[in-house]
Amino acid sequence: MDIAPDAALPTAADIAAAAGRIGDFAKVTPVLRSDALDARAGARLLIKAEVLQRTGSFKIRGAANHITQLSRAALDRGVLAYSSGNHAQAVACAAARVGSPAVIVMPADAPRIKIARTRGFGAEVVLYDRYTENREALGARIAAERGLTLIPPYDHPWTIAGGGTLGLELAGQAAELGVVLDALVVCCGGGGLIAGCGLAMAERSPATRVYAVEPAGFDDTARSLAAGERQAVDPAARSICDALLSPSPGELTFALNRRHLAGGLTVTDAEAADAMRAAFAELKLVVEPGGAVALAAALNRRLPGQADGDLTVGVVLTGGNVDPSLYAEVLTAAL
Amino acid sequence: MDIAPDAALPTAADIAAAAGRIGDFAKVTPVLRSDALDARAGARLLIKAEVLQRTGSFKIRGAANHITQLSRAALDRGVLAYSSGNHAQAVACAAARVGSPAVIVMPADAPRIKIARTRGFGAEVVLYDRYTENREALGARIAAERGLTLIPPYDHPWTIAGGGTLGLELAGQAAELGVVLDALVVCCGGGGLIAGCGLAMAERSPATRVYAVEPAGFDDTARSLAAGERQAVDPAARSICDALLSPSPGELTFALNRRHLAGGLTVTDAEAADAMRAAFAELKLVVEPGGAVALAAALNRRLPGQADGDLTVGVVLTGGNVDPSLYAEVLTAAL
Repeated sequence: MDIAPDAALPTAADIAAAAGRIGDFAKVTPVLRSDALDARAGARLLIKAEVLQRTGSFKIRGAANHITQLSRAALDRGVLAYSSGNHAQAVACAAARVGSPAVIVMPADAPRIKIARTRGFGAEVVLYDRYTENREALGARIAAERGLTLIPPYDHPWTIAGGGTLGLELAGQAAELGVVLDALVVCCGGGGLIAGCGLAMAERSPATRVYAVEPAGFDDTARSLAAGERQAVDPAARSICDALLSPSPGELTFALNRRHLAGGLTVTDAEAADAMRAAFAELKLVVEPGGAVALAAALNRRLPGQADGDLTVGVVLTGGNVDPSLYAEVLTAAL
Repeated sequence: MDIAPDAALPTAADIAAAAGRIGDFAKVTPVLRSDALDARAGARLLIKAEVLQRTGSFKIRGAANHITQLSRAALDRGVLAYSSGNHAQAVACAAARVGSPAVIVMPADAPRIKIARTRGFGAEVVLYDRYTENREALGARIAAERGLTLIPPYDHPWTIAGGGTLGLELAGQAAELGVVLDALVVCCGGGGLIAGCGLAMAERSPATRVYAVEPAGFDDTARSLAAGERQAVDPAARSICDALLSPSPGELTFALNRRHLAGGLTVTDAEAADAMRAAFAELKLVVEPGGAVALAAALNRRLPGQADGDLTVGVVLTGGNVDPSLYAEVLTAAL
């Protein structure tokens, strides 16, 4: 697998430009503190509550940065996305706000709440089998047939720059609080959000070490960082973290991540579920499994240097779109 | 039942003074918006996410305003509170922050999460039977024996002024957003929070009509407002809204509420549970039953004039301390 040339990669200036574009679509989400979680982590946690973002996840940032750069003619023809559910809602929401038809290709086993909310934004949802069908091929065919513009979920400079606005925002919020983040933990599927955040931190907070957090079995970015080239996930791997099941790092995202990340951390599904319960009890926030892995890493003291008890750590809670039935199982410790 | 004399009542100036005192204890909580909830309510909702407050409810505002006005000698002897759980945590938390021992008298059937979190702040918890024992008498006896200062849950000018800081804060946030609240809905147990909020709105946003929202069977404030004098709850009444089970309006709180409130609204337990599910799905916030009744009133279009679809309504989500088992039942629609 290749490394993308520098010319194709987004820059810190692209993130600043994205922040200027997405203001009508995305909200500034708050940073929360919790003495109880700090005690569990042995660290000062600055918790970026991105579950409070419009559509319930960070994905609106990248989708809005993409859609606002399309021509009116392209918007009138429509847009297409493939997504496990959060990018789906984000593209559907952003497209609806600019009057563009949206077709979303989603796995048939995506959380029902994600499928329902995507349809709720007015999008046409096309379902496929996550384990036997190729969503890229399916999406490309529909897009070609209907003249739709593809909005990629992570491996595109506009998507990455949009996600990077979260890092830019958090760096500013940390500065307002008068602290420097020693570390930032961000969940990682295809690696778009963390690629943008790593880029933002390199520019705005270069002392901050940025770590990707992945579910066990889906540690392709951690292994790729260690190997120096992109590694794939074992197709037999399974996880409750439905938002983080990408088969390999993206080309652009890995090119950025190998440059900016301090490493990759891994948590089990049980640890992710425990972090969901901690967010319920201490933060009163609903966090989906994939959105809780960064908190899980912090609570389980996985960061280098965390045992010393002196770190200030940014933790991103990326999304809260979880089916009530699964959430109830997690709360009652059945998972 | 008597009406308190004006001299005993807190003023808008007391609320402003409270806001200056509680800054080290309480946070400024965000105002959230949701297109989906606006559509359900047929109104523009400004949702005050007080579940994100320290201790998970608004009660820290009153507890901090009280404790910061005690002498060091009184703090060294200690404080006592009786509470169904949110005031308990608030007093325990505020006392711990100033190094004051705290004894909390709680009903034995309070949510386990509330008892556990109160103990977690280092307080001594004394349990009593909600339906056969008199918590005021029990608390007074322990306070007298140990020289403790009682921190009343609602019927005290310092508690009311502390709660009023929420209204003051919300009025400022609405002004920042460039809107005037046509109405404000606040849950009501003993009536302390809404008494403070009504006072704050009368001063800062006099066009805002303030409504108390109570669970069915616990509509003592609604009936008292209609009757012009304090009415009691039927002792046989039951509700899942454990935070709102006060037997009658307070003396001070009712004296303020009869002056400032536009009326009382009532919702069923099923409507409160449905509002909890709406907050889960659309806001990603964990809201306890009593904390959800104001949202329930708005979603069920109970406000006068709401049918016209043109109201801007402040909705306070007061607390999020709910047992995981009950929350799981609510999510799976068993309640």
